[in-house]
Amino acid sequence: MRVLGIDPGLARTGWGVVEGQGGRYRAVAFGAIATAGDFPSRLVELYRQLSELVALHSPDALSIEQVFKGPNVQSLVKLSHARAVAILAAGLKGLPVAEYTPMQIKRAVTGRGAADKSQVNVLVTHLLGLHQAPKPLDASDALAAAICHLNRASFEARLEG
Amino acid sequence: MRVLGIDPGLARTGWGVVEGQGGRYRAVAFGAIATAGDFPSRLVELYRQLSELVALHSPDALSIEQVFKGPNVQSLVKLSHARAVAILAAGLKGLPVAEYTPMQIKRAVTGRGAADKSQVNVLVTHLLGLHQAPKPLDASDALAAAICHLNRASFEARLEG
Repeated sequence: MRVLGIDPGLARTGWGVVEGQGGRYRAVAFGAIATAGDFPSRLVELYRQLSELVALHSPDALSIEQVFKGPNVQSLVKLSHARAVAILAAGLKGLPVAEYTPMQIKRAVTGRGAADKSQVNVLVTHLLGLHQAPKPLDASDALAAAICHLNRASFEARLEG
Repeated sequence: MRVLGIDPGLARTGWGVVEGQGGRYRAVAFGAIATAGDFPSRLVELYRQLSELVALHSPDALSIEQVFKGPNVQSLVKLSHARAVAILAAGLKGLPVAEYTPMQIKRAVTGRGAADKSQVNVLVTHLLGLHQAPKPLDASDALAAAICHLNRASFEARLEG
C-alpha cells in the first residue's frame, strides 16, 4: 500500500509518499510545494502540483491532518483553503481521503501526542531508515501523516487476518 | 459581461449568474447546491456541481466574498474549504476570481455595508427585476456578489472610456 501524506499550507505544503511493505515502511519521495502570486492563483498552482504528484506516484490513499486551530483567524482560513485543495487533488482522482488529528499523527511516529515538529522529524528519519533528515519540516510532517495511515491500515489488516 | 457569484458553504452553497447589459443587470440563473456524505466527498461533490455550472453558463469571472470570521472555528474551517472549492472550480477553467469584503457586497446592492441577508434579498430582487424573491437567501447573497463585481467592472469601464 502506498500513501500520500500532506501537510497543507498556503505558503508551503509538505508532501511525502510512503510505501508499506510487510510491516516496514519505505519513503518513495517527499518534498514541499511553494506557491506565489495572488490568493486564487496560489490555490490553482497548488492543485496542479499536487495533481501531478498523484499522477506520478499513484498512491492508494491520501492522509491529511484535521484542522482545529491556527495562530490566528487568517492563518486558519488560508490553511483550510490549502487543505481543501489537497483533498480535491486526491478526491477528484477517486482516492480515499483519511483524516487524522494532529495527536494521532504525532503518536503514530513518536509514541506520544505532544511531540513537536523537530521530534517528528527525528523519528520519521529513523522509522523510514533515511540517511538524512527530511527537509523542510513540512515534509516530515507529511511523511508522518502517511505513516499514521499505514499504521491503521496494517492494524485493520491484522484484525481481519 | 457575465459573472458567477458564489456564497460558499459546506451544507449549502448559493450561486447566481448575472449578466450586465448596458448598465442593466439580468439574472441568468441562480440556486443553491446542497451536499451530503463525509467531508471529503462533500468537497468533491461541490466541485463537480460548480464545474458543471461554469461549463453550462460560461461566466467571464467568479465573484466571491472574502472570509474573515465565523460563528466558531469549525464553521470557519468548513466555510474556507467550500470557498477554496469554488475558487478552484473557476480558476482551473481559467476564469479570473474577484474577491470582495462582505461590506463591499452589501453596499453594492443596498447602499450600505451593514445590511442583513433579508435586506440583501429584497434589494437583489428589485435590482434584477425579479417577480419573486430568490430562495434560499444563499442564492441572493451569491447574486449580490455577482452584482458587486459588475458594478466595479462598469465603473472601471467608465474610467477608461
